[in-house]
Amino acid sequence: MPLSEIYESVQEDLVKVEDRLKAVSQVDFPWLSELLDYSLRGGGKAIRPALVLLTGKFYDYNLDCLLPMATAVEVYHTATLVHDDAVDKSSVRRGRPTINKVWGEDKAVLLGDYLFAKGGELVATTGNLQVMKLSSQTIMTISSGELSQSFNAFNLEQTRQHYFQRISRKTASLFSLATESGAILSQAPEKSIQILKEYGCNLGIAFQIVDDILDFIGSEEELGKPVGSDLVQGTLTLPAMLLLERYPEENPVKRLFQGRDKQENVRLAIDLIRNSSIVPECYKVASGYASKACHSLKSLPDSVSQRALTELAEYITSRRE
Amino acid sequence: MPLSEIYESVQEDLVKVEDRLKAVSQVDFPWLSELLDYSLRGGGKAIRPALVLLTGKFYDYNLDCLLPMATAVEVYHTATLVHDDAVDKSSVRRGRPTINKVWGEDKAVLLGDYLFAKGGELVATTGNLQVMKLSSQTIMTISSGELSQSFNAFNLEQTRQHYFQRISRKTASLFSLATESGAILSQAPEKSIQILKEYGCNLGIAFQIVDDILDFIGSEEELGKPVGSDLVQGTLTLPAMLLLERYPEENPVKRLFQGRDKQENVRLAIDLIRNSSIVPECYKVASGYASKACHSLKSLPDSVSQRALTELAEYITSRRE
Repeated sequence: MPLSEIYESVQEDLVKVEDRLKAVSQVDFPWLSELLDYSLRGGGKAIRPALVLLTGKFYDYNLDCLLPMATAVEVYHTATLVHDDAVDKSSVRRGRPTINKVWGEDKAVLLGDYLFAKGGELVATTGNLQVMKLSSQTIMTISSGELSQSFNAFNLEQTRQHYFQRISRKTASLFSLATESGAILSQAPEKSIQILKEYGCNLGIAFQIVDDILDFIGSEEELGKPVGSDLVQGTLTLPAMLLLERYPEENPVKRLFQGRDKQENVRLAIDLIRNSSIVPECYKVASGYASKACHSLKSLPDSVSQRALTELAEYITSRRE
Repeated sequence: MPLSEIYESVQEDLVKVEDRLKAVSQVDFPWLSELLDYSLRGGGKAIRPALVLLTGKFYDYNLDCLLPMATAVEVYHTATLVHDDAVDKSSVRRGRPTINKVWGEDKAVLLGDYLFAKGGELVATTGNLQVMKLSSQTIMTISSGELSQSFNAFNLEQTRQHYFQRISRKTASLFSLATESGAILSQAPEKSIQILKEYGCNLGIAFQIVDDILDFIGSEEELGKPVGSDLVQGTLTLPAMLLLERYPEENPVKRLFQGRDKQENVRLAIDLIRNSSIVPECYKVASGYASKACHSLKSLPDSVSQRALTELAEYITSRRE
């Protein structure tokens, strides 16, 4: 099912989120306006705002709170991308030059700071203390996940447990902020809040695993960035971990992480992973998390939202970009 | 008057802020803990937390709100320093190697993000919506001020108005957040909130002007960083502006900004500024803002805080580090 169908019940309100994102760029300083516009019009899939709105639909669908929150999670997401690209010195994102590539790393750092703070301001307009605290804590979690990734770059001694812990923090936490805040702001009962939070968390893990698979099997055109970026950055993801487990002695990932023949070993690792059962195995792990996500929804009232969130989990594990 | 005397009435509570700052470093991940500890134990003068507490003393001195806010402004301040150093690629701050120097720019960016979010979490514990919104807006203002500085690096066509606007945003806004939030959280009447906000703003401008003077006349030991850093970064500050006004034709700042003989021209500019009336003129401007700050306090009840804030303005315009 295409995203547009999954989003159908909130499509109209997603347009309003889009408008609010455009309004974020309308500031007094033309140079800031340009940076904001460029970063916020990246053409993302709006999964996080959709999660806020779809979870909000289970109970009291109050747009006064849900719209700023949906906008905030997208602004936060953009902030993390801008900083990630600066930190990784990436040149391309979604097929376009990154902020750091066009304007320099210094501008990217400061723009990201502005966006994080703008996210905070938007969350403040919900008037909900719990969601405000949760949002700050989520950004702390994401930053510490990113730091963990950075500290473990080119480290071969990482277990799957490390991997899942890291992606829970750097990716799934923002998904669960979206679903948990959507639930809180629509006055969901405590039990439902926990269920929707758990859904977001498992969905986020599935999403990141697929992202990590695509980094090996996608084309540069589909990915909007070079294939094998994670390996080049020294980030050990699930497919590379499985390759290491399979060939513990002679292994291109091992040689690469030890600093030998970068290009050649990235190419070799990509080839080995593509032509093995590693890819379906990783997809199986991702699907496991997606199923877990959907399973938790079953105790919620049957509704358009429940079906949309279930379809979204399906979409996420079969996406190619 | 030394700072310890000015702070006397809140000294005990500043120790509590210090304890809370130490608690910020107590996290589960040893590598994050180390970074936080290093960045937060920089040995600053705790001016911003003192401002929160001193302004809070005018009315209902409620430490449940004031302590987290005082801690938050110091955490925010630290976050801006960590990112500034990363952006400027500075090696030394307060006599110690910077985070980016020791751990790399990537870690500095992510640590700064964590600190900004931690600041937000602390502000959220005040339970005050107005202060939460104000805090996010202040970080937006600071980032846009820093961006403005970055976009105008090596630009000779800047007026004093640009300068004052920029330092209002990048420095004074955090001072005024400290005083305004101290006032709000102590249930000050609206008029007093405005007065204390204005005090913070003028004090912050005075503070930054003195900072910009010291960058030329201080010693490396006093500054804890190389002399003339601003010029090296292409930042046009008040003393350099006055030098440009004085010698519009042949001028080392002009040559430097045009990319000629960097070292030689920085040295020349420092010498010319030190041996001219520019330094006392700049101090006069700073004192003007400090006086303005103190003047606005006169309509508040005569109190220990009023005297301390007046002394603080005096201290700030005569400090050497």
